[in-house]
Amino acid sequence: MNMDALRRFVAVVMFVGTASTIAVFSSRLSAEDADDALLKKAQKLFKPLPEQMPAPPNNPTTPEKVELGKMLYYDPRLSLSGFISCNSCHNLATFGVDNEETSIGHKWQLGPRNAPTVLNAGFHIAQFWDGRAKDLEEQAKAPILNPVEMAVPDSMFAVDRIKSIPQYVELFKKVFPGQEDPVNYDNIAKAIAAFERTLVTPSRFDKFLQGDKNALTAEEKEGLKLFISKGCVSCHNGVAVGGGMYSKIGIFKPYPTEDQGRFEITKKKSDKFVFKVPSLRNVAMTYPYFHDGKVWDLHEAVRIMGQTQLGINLKDDEINKIVAFLKSLTGEIPEYARTLPVLPPSTPETPKPVVK
Amino acid sequence: MNMDALRRFVAVVMFVGTASTIAVFSSRLSAEDADDALLKKAQKLFKPLPEQMPAPPNNPTTPEKVELGKMLYYDPRLSLSGFISCNSCHNLATFGVDNEETSIGHKWQLGPRNAPTVLNAGFHIAQFWDGRAKDLEEQAKAPILNPVEMAVPDSMFAVDRIKSIPQYVELFKKVFPGQEDPVNYDNIAKAIAAFERTLVTPSRFDKFLQGDKNALTAEEKEGLKLFISKGCVSCHNGVAVGGGMYSKIGIFKPYPTEDQGRFEITKKKSDKFVFKVPSLRNVAMTYPYFHDGKVWDLHEAVRIMGQTQLGINLKDDEINKIVAFLKSLTGEIPEYARTLPVLPPSTPETPKPVVK
Repeated sequence: MNMDALRRFVAVVMFVGTASTIAVFSSRLSAEDADDALLKKAQKLFKPLPEQMPAPPNNPTTPEKVELGKMLYYDPRLSLSGFISCNSCHNLATFGVDNEETSIGHKWQLGPRNAPTVLNAGFHIAQFWDGRAKDLEEQAKAPILNPVEMAVPDSMFAVDRIKSIPQYVELFKKVFPGQEDPVNYDNIAKAIAAFERTLVTPSRFDKFLQGDKNALTAEEKEGLKLFISKGCVSCHNGVAVGGGMYSKIGIFKPYPTEDQGRFEITKKKSDKFVFKVPSLRNVAMTYPYFHDGKVWDLHEAVRIMGQTQLGINLKDDEINKIVAFLKSLTGEIPEYARTLPVLPPSTPETPKPVVK
Repeated sequence: MNMDALRRFVAVVMFVGTASTIAVFSSRLSAEDADDALLKKAQKLFKPLPEQMPAPPNNPTTPEKVELGKMLYYDPRLSLSGFISCNSCHNLATFGVDNEETSIGHKWQLGPRNAPTVLNAGFHIAQFWDGRAKDLEEQAKAPILNPVEMAVPDSMFAVDRIKSIPQYVELFKKVFPGQEDPVNYDNIAKAIAAFERTLVTPSRFDKFLQGDKNALTAEEKEGLKLFISKGCVSCHNGVAVGGGMYSKIGIFKPYPTEDQGRFEITKKKSDKFVFKVPSLRNVAMTYPYFHDGKVWDLHEAVRIMGQTQLGINLKDDEINKIVAFLKSLTGEIPEYARTLPVLPPSTPETPKPVVK
């Protein structure tokens, strides 16, 4: 190589180098612009989880009530058999679900619908797949009495169990001061609901919504873009990425189910096959999916939603990206909530477990 | 009152004061002597719990193994149904038992014997009521395969479930380094056993044995004296206050049971109705009592033991004192062990729960 050739070579290298630097710089700039735009859009559609879930005026959250509620949540004596607690089906070791198609209840009866996660549930418009309970307090009362779940014969049976345990009586007096008869079914439900209001699970998506554009990977951001542009967000939005409205399952294509959902409560024809839109927080961990728990794979669930709810066939590549985004919704379950209480012992007065 | 009368009055007051001081002092001295004697006697018969339970040479306890074992202990996927974990029947919210006569297993089948507590179990001479497993490792393997308990069809089913979960595979590699195929049934049992070796529950009785004579109340010390003098201690001794030997139930008076205990394992005539002597640590919390779980009240259990094992009718007052002592054996369950792990999710390869 002579000197001229060398100079030309160096010049070319320098030009290419400069050009590619400019290209990288400008593409980075435009990527940042795109991230900014995505963040702004997302901030309009979603909300980061607050540190504390708001409580209704008639059931303010106090540390003592939360602790009492935690004890009740984990206490199998709220079931007839003494074997099933709230945590049996809403297991906080497995993101507030049992990962069963439908739950196993008293005498191994199988429930009619998939158990939804208790995590962030207080952010929902109402409770249960069909929204038949208006809040966590009302929800907590139902499975205890449901003959295929915890199966106590009536609310007084549950109250009698708790009342027979002096440590519980003391705690109810402290948590509900000034009440003449604080151990009652309403207060049991209130305490459990107060505990459940601590089940807030912030994830990387919340960091993103709070302005940290690097909290999500490039693939997750692609997924979020698709989640928005394809229309998933029209139902799954807000602080819980769902849980805020009702929708028919099978708008564009029927979903194979006999379950008429909200219609069974309201008897309104327009409520046939209508269910509460589930929250997608922690969705990667709360398989199997839908009210019937028939779909185990999240990719498959996203594909079905595209077809039944949006009338579109999502491509595999799109599904993968959306699933990547959904995984960023897996949050942290507070350690306090996961720490089993030391339950006080029964007494000779405590109604015995009935298992047969 | 004249001066003489006043002097006499003062003298009398001083005499009475001095005398009663001497009386109190000497009775305190003799009470202290008695406490010393009781402590020395107790120190020969019992041992305080060590901070760490010793581990066998082929399964040393490591923090990573304990954490893996805790995950497996709480993981319901080790049961066919995906609903029952070790903790279902050995619930660490209720002192390592289920407080059931006998346990509820797969498809609501009822087991043949009462579930013993997992707390301090590694101090026992052997595992199960009939001692058929030599250690915690061997014990851990049995309920998973027992068709009336967790009911997996064979050990490979359990291994396949765990192997299908990448986070578990990574942990097994770290916990059992250098092994070609570390996810195997032996290692599952080893990890669970390592976790169970952390379930040591020191109580006020240990403080007493360590020399703090005020760690027990006067009534509890009376109970301890009776526990020793009446002969309870002849079987219930050592570090676990029991668990160290076998004995026939019904030596002086038959105990009503069809269960032939250890005879069913050894087929030796001398083993008819022979069971492992249970540990009395946490006994106030681990009702109902005996291998059949037929007795719910601790007073009644003590009365029966007097009759069947010692041939004596304990008086109500003696029973009350012995029960007071037994309550001092209720210990602290380590918070770490009570904190539910966050279990890794299943994958499409994970064998699904079988509930029907």
